[in-house]
Amino acid sequence: MNGFTLHADFEPTSVAVGELALCSVRLQADARFPWLILVPRRPGVSDLDHLEAADRARLMDEQVLAMGAVRALGEALLRPVTKLNVAALGNMTPQLHVHVIGRRSDDAAWPAPVWGVGSPQPYSDTALMLALSAVRDALRL
Amino acid sequence: MNGFTLHADFEPTSVAVGELALCSVRLQADARFPWLILVPRRPGVSDLDHLEAADRARLMDEQVLAMGAVRALGEALLRPVTKLNVAALGNMTPQLHVHVIGRRSDDAAWPAPVWGVGSPQPYSDTALMLALSAVRDALRL
Repeated sequence: MNGFTLHADFEPTSVAVGELALCSVRLQADARFPWLILVPRRPGVSDLDHLEAADRARLMDEQVLAMGAVRALGEALLRPVTKLNVAALGNMTPQLHVHVIGRRSDDAAWPAPVWGVGSPQPYSDTALMLALSAVRDALRL
Repeated sequence: MNGFTLHADFEPTSVAVGELALCSVRLQADARFPWLILVPRRPGVSDLDHLEAADRARLMDEQVLAMGAVRALGEALLRPVTKLNVAALGNMTPQLHVHVIGRRSDDAAWPAPVWGVGSPQPYSDTALMLALSAVRDALRL
């Protein structure tokens, strides 16, 4: 263990998908958008440039993996995405995390960013199983 | 030349800073936030995972450089930043670009993302010269 613990903010708003080499992967609990969150398992890191170079390279690789998984998730939910938003913000939850969000021109926020728009729409149990399965397959988890 | 031309959307909203190995660097013309934009000089690329692996590695390196430059810009403007937002969105302007934005808990949008909040505040001529100088020094341009 390296002293990393997931920030408590993530638990009520997202679901654990699995672990990549660097990041814990979470599915945002909002069926309006195919949306993954990557959380590097490094303690005390709030900004990208706090990561060491090797971890930054891993993070870029895992972002690309997550982008593929979000595309797969869009297909599985029969709403293929046409644009990806990739963002490390962290104004609310200081632990470094990267949002990877699939977008469509008919989605609930387009063309604005998704944060703060409307209210999350919970996944049904069936859709959540389907979503987790699609994402884990794409990430080979 | 590789066929790259800067998307016309960037011209009215930002100012050219200089060229890194991969990216053109622009200063967003909004004095409310120390805000750089990196545009990889690759034609026809709209999402991060369209870049080749070597370019993705360069982009990560240049993001870190830009983060340092945004910190330096905040210092130069006597408003040191406490958080960085790094985001590739591109819902409006499809050419791949990465926002690197310095944030403070007393800024005009905190803790929300900056996009779409209020109206840009132009730099004064003096502040713009100071800002460009600080950013170019930090980027060694």
